[in-house]
Amino acid sequence: MRQFVVLGHTAPTEPEFELDDLAGGAGRLDVLCRCVNSAFFLSHAIRESVRVSLVLADEVTIRLEGTELRYMNPDERNIASLLRQALETRSEAIGQTEVESTPGIYVANRDFTSVLKRASAEGTLVQLHEDGDALADLDPPEHPVFVLSDHQDFTETEGEVLTGHADHRISVGPEPLHADHTISVVHNFLDTDGYTRY
Amino acid sequence: MRQFVVLGHTAPTEPEFELDDLAGGAGRLDVLCRCVNSAFFLSHAIRESVRVSLVLADEVTIRLEGTELRYMNPDERNIASLLRQALETRSEAIGQTEVESTPGIYVANRDFTSVLKRASAEGTLVQLHEDGDALADLDPPEHPVFVLSDHQDFTETEGEVLTGHADHRISVGPEPLHADHTISVVHNFLDTDGYTRY
Repeated sequence: MRQFVVLGHTAPTEPEFELDDLAGGAGRLDVLCRCVNSAFFLSHAIRESVRVSLVLADEVTIRLEGTELRYMNPDERNIASLLRQALETRSEAIGQTEVESTPGIYVANRDFTSVLKRASAEGTLVQLHEDGDALADLDPPEHPVFVLSDHQDFTETEGEVLTGHADHRISVGPEPLHADHTISVVHNFLDTDGYTRY
Repeated sequence: MRQFVVLGHTAPTEPEFELDDLAGGAGRLDVLCRCVNSAFFLSHAIRESVRVSLVLADEVTIRLEGTELRYMNPDERNIASLLRQALETRSEAIGQTEVESTPGIYVANRDFTSVLKRASAEGTLVQLHEDGDALADLDPPEHPVFVLSDHQDFTETEGEVLTGHADHRISVGPEPLHADHTISVVHNFLDTDGYTRY
């Protein structure tokens, strides 16, 4: 199982946004949609053994499960519509209990710390950051949990929480990449057993 | 200079399509928009030394130049609106002569063979294909021209044209990836000098 936790600092926590304005009024939800795309889509297939947790404004978390996903297309608009449905279902979520909005998509009132605690119990926590160690030197963990930030850097508080939990701090290369491009690179690194196979 | 030539088999050649329906009525233009995104965008910057040629239905080619691009945002809708502007300008393009629609974006009545001939004179032609040799074994060319197909495989004719021109046939890994994810992986391979640096 490969996990990706993505922080959406300016992402909406309510469903009142327009699918025509993802990069504007919807608080750069386009960035998170592309992360979902990169995490799950193969050519004409879904990567089943993948879990994505989108942490929206440190308040709401949408969890997506590769084994259960249905009806998802790779375009930003379609993914955004599924995330909006999740936010519409949020009113049914009491406390930190999750509610399923569509197959394989769950929403809960969970913040970053809560998500990180659960994830670190399930695998090896890897923070992806421009200033980290080289990806090529990482021994691919069996159950990696990659933590990424959206178009904004990790806040100081998030950085402190991560320092307390992360097993590795890794950079994928000398260029500062978008989060979704980083996910594509990381998948390829794992697909090829750390560039040693294939 | 890194070049990417992407074939859009079902892409529109006229501007009469809706930005709300990129994955449907616009013939999967969403795929090409994500390729443009992966080719050009760094975190808060544009990769300047990049050229992308989108070959639409083997009839129209839109060329994008990293050094000249302005006003482009990374979301599919914004990129699609720029491509639509290029197709609106197409009526001014006589023969194979290019016309600039917005800064750094040019349109011409050029087919795949024409684009490939020009590109192969400018650099080392690398076909990206599931059945190719391993990327990690490729000695990074100084001026690579990567040729990719959209959500459909290369046609038999395209394959024959490529066989005549391509210097390498490369696969980025054991999983069949989307074209835009492949571009992210290839950029990272070149950024790290073939995974030997960084």
